[in-house]
Amino acid sequence: MAIGIIARLTIHDGKNEEFEGIFAELEAAVSANEPGNNFYALHKSREDDTSYIVLEQYVDQAALDAHGQTVHFKTLGAKMGSCMAGRPDIEIMDSTS
Amino acid sequence: MAIGIIARLTIHDGKNEEFEGIFAELEAAVSANEPGNNFYALHKSREDDTSYIVLEQYVDQAALDAHGQTVHFKTLGAKMGSCMAGRPDIEIMDSTS
Repeated sequence: MAIGIIARLTIHDGKNEEFEGIFAELEAAVSANEPGNNFYALHKSREDDTSYIVLEQYVDQAALDAHGQTVHFKTLGAKMGSCMAGRPDIEIMDSTS
Repeated sequence: MAIGIIARLTIHDGKNEEFEGIFAELEAAVSANEPGNNFYALHKSREDDTSYIVLEQYVDQAALDAHGQTVHFKTLGAKMGSCMAGRPDIEIMDSTS
């Protein structure tokens, strides 16, 4: 069963351009290297300039687990670390189809 | 710019099967008829048996507007009306890519 994720990220003031640039690399790497990923897209809150929302879907738990173990996720996650103002808030849900 | 949506839906107790069946028709109709839709997938909360989350993305505001005006959205939305325990909670966000 597919698994959906809403990941809410908060960055430091003024880091938007740097953060979005690194995340664009991550989106491209997920698209190119993770056949078990159905959707992976960064969005920006309309209410808060430092709040972002990643909408994600994976074909199954194994694909979600694999995502977190990829070199691109670890490398780019570390690269964006100085932008982050806290730990991500992750909501996990089950696809009905 | 693409637009993301998180739609949170609450149904009446015991209506899960009926609701999910109608929503599967809606997902199929969106996929078949809305070229401006990038993603449209129903998920079920892991915390609450009556709570669902639709993750959506449209290529632009016009595509989002068009979605709400389609015959399938209006017809199937009405069909699932008796399942719903309240109005949907809609969060709108802007894609960064």
